[in-house]
Amino acid sequence: MAITIAALKEAPAEHRVSLVPSVVKRLIKQGCQVLVERGAGAAANFADQQYEEAGAKVVDRSAALAQANLLTVVDRPDEDTLGQLKEHQVILGLLSLSVDHDVAKQLAEKQVTALSFELLPRTVSRAQSMDALSSQSSVAGYKAALVAADHFMRYFPMMITAAGTAKPAKVLVLGTGVAGLQAIGTAKRLGAIVSGYDVRPASRGEVESLGAKFLTSSVSAAGKGGYARQLTKEEQQQQQDELAGFIADSDIVITTARVPGKKPPMLVTEKSVQEAAPGSIFIDIAASDLGGNVAGSKPGEVVETANGAKIVGADNLPSELATSASEMYSKNVQAVIKALLNKDGEIEIDTTDDVMSELVATHQGEVISGRLRSQLGLP
Amino acid sequence: MAITIAALKEAPAEHRVSLVPSVVKRLIKQGCQVLVERGAGAAANFADQQYEEAGAKVVDRSAALAQANLLTVVDRPDEDTLGQLKEHQVILGLLSLSVDHDVAKQLAEKQVTALSFELLPRTVSRAQSMDALSSQSSVAGYKAALVAADHFMRYFPMMITAAGTAKPAKVLVLGTGVAGLQAIGTAKRLGAIVSGYDVRPASRGEVESLGAKFLTSSVSAAGKGGYARQLTKEEQQQQQDELAGFIADSDIVITTARVPGKKPPMLVTEKSVQEAAPGSIFIDIAASDLGGNVAGSKPGEVVETANGAKIVGADNLPSELATSASEMYSKNVQAVIKALLNKDGEIEIDTTDDVMSELVATHQGEVISGRLRSQLGLP
Repeated sequence: MAITIAALKEAPAEHRVSLVPSVVKRLIKQGCQVLVERGAGAAANFADQQYEEAGAKVVDRSAALAQANLLTVVDRPDEDTLGQLKEHQVILGLLSLSVDHDVAKQLAEKQVTALSFELLPRTVSRAQSMDALSSQSSVAGYKAALVAADHFMRYFPMMITAAGTAKPAKVLVLGTGVAGLQAIGTAKRLGAIVSGYDVRPASRGEVESLGAKFLTSSVSAAGKGGYARQLTKEEQQQQQDELAGFIADSDIVITTARVPGKKPPMLVTEKSVQEAAPGSIFIDIAASDLGGNVAGSKPGEVVETANGAKIVGADNLPSELATSASEMYSKNVQAVIKALLNKDGEIEIDTTDDVMSELVATHQGEVISGRLRSQLGLP
Repeated sequence: MAITIAALKEAPAEHRVSLVPSVVKRLIKQGCQVLVERGAGAAANFADQQYEEAGAKVVDRSAALAQANLLTVVDRPDEDTLGQLKEHQVILGLLSLSVDHDVAKQLAEKQVTALSFELLPRTVSRAQSMDALSSQSSVAGYKAALVAADHFMRYFPMMITAAGTAKPAKVLVLGTGVAGLQAIGTAKRLGAIVSGYDVRPASRGEVESLGAKFLTSSVSAAGKGGYARQLTKEEQQQQQDELAGFIADSDIVITTARVPGKKPPMLVTEKSVQEAAPGSIFIDIAASDLGGNVAGSKPGEVVETANGAKIVGADNLPSELATSASEMYSKNVQAVIKALLNKDGEIEIDTTDDVMSELVATHQGEVISGRLRSQLGLP
């Protein structure tokens, strides 16, 4: 029997949608039925009509919750919606279950099968097409460079004109993961002089291949047996001082050291912010209620400092590039669904599979994900 | 005797400033005294202290007006300030005197010497370093592409990821003057597929040299003796239909057909706007109180249409990139000042000079500028 998939509408502040019309079309071709909550794609520029043309049925939330075998979301829905989930129903999204353990326990008790993207084992190559954290980080990095360029009151590229030459902007990206590399690439495209900083010396190759300068700490954190060792207080201070020097030499700093559910490391201190030249821009991708990478950053806000610098608390950049972000995310969702369906087109959760044994947070009353189990102290 | 130059503070909506500290320094080196109105550079990230360090005296407006031989501005000051100008005082800026003839006449009556950048003869090669319209158009074109990228909810470049490929954005730039070419170049940098449209076939080379596709009308406006001829109604319709086709094939349209003081030509019709796909972006650099290039554009506003397109009324983009725009503008101002000073460092207006005979709107009670005289019906 064909399964029914339903994409829910996100909260107003979230412009992304978990399924886009082109992916709906492919799911239907594979034999699934697809429901889409009315207006779910509107903020990402996908109209209800486009979903209908793709073969989906546009319904209200109660119908979606009542009929779907599998619910897809971007962010975790509100408690009321979670409360309406039924036994054996599957929900897939960026559910942050490794952060909010109580929710994970509740879903397990309700016999709901919850798949939470942040639990995906990112090192398994088969999981790459499902890697929503990666696809959304890529969007965030691109958008971070654009937001920086838009706030900055000077040219990014060098400009040679009849009246004289304007020097290019100096951009420093802290953290060279997926978001950092994409920010570096985009700032380079725009013609800035770009540096990427990371404490992992192994990042050098990727940063330099983008035409940027690689900066790192002179303090090595490499310890015995390949493990990182604890730095001494003096070493930490030395690292911070070096970093402060790199920051002072930049017009724009983009920080990307985000750790889901944990307080982000403070990379740009209050002193660095206060000593920044007027017009300096800080884009803090890690801005959150728990803090950010930049002293004084506030999620969703642009803070202007007394010395004329701007700190952009860029907590949800993928939502600002909602169409592309949704397209990417939706493809990740599609890849997970494909892996969930057996040859009869039914959902079959194989909790021994190396991807599913981590991605599946809860199933049949149990916490499955190895990472989540160890966080909860389960054997 | 050394002349005194004073840069006035602009109106609050204008972030540019007519003199930046580095240019102040050079003017002082050349023997000028420089006054800067308190806070004049603040919105462009130049602090009063920087001006003082460059050798300027920071003063209030009344002192600037009382002491200066030459006043520099970006936009034309308010009537009250113009009313305080004295006989023989010189004022230089984007005064729009070819638009507001009454103001030109008043300044002539008051025996003020007014130099208005829009009157500069742009074909004289010696005038290139003074060409503020050009330097500011260049800023506007760069910023137009950035504003477009920031409003657009999709990637500009093609993105190849583990989950699939995102197609690049299609950008169409209407009008390939200085602003248009800079918008084309910046959109190309960002990885979009870019086309430039102009009715002048001679623009092809410049557009193609930027890696963009050149689009033009199949209707030739070339008439006898090199003059443009009046198009017939049918030809006008054909031209408009062709253009509507190009617009419909684009995600983003940047329009740059601005004619100072005149109603801008309507290039994107209401029909084109209404038929645009959701998420389409129109950036109208020509947006003004007289209308713009895009139906429904409003200066300084972002209009969202019922079909999910956005029209950005980008009436003063240089003000949004105030630091770079001011640096460029200030160099143009410096070039004019250099041309005005004789070997004793005094202002000497040579109304027979091929640049000054156009740039100087009024001097010693007379309207000087040839263009302005012909507009006013003077011999």
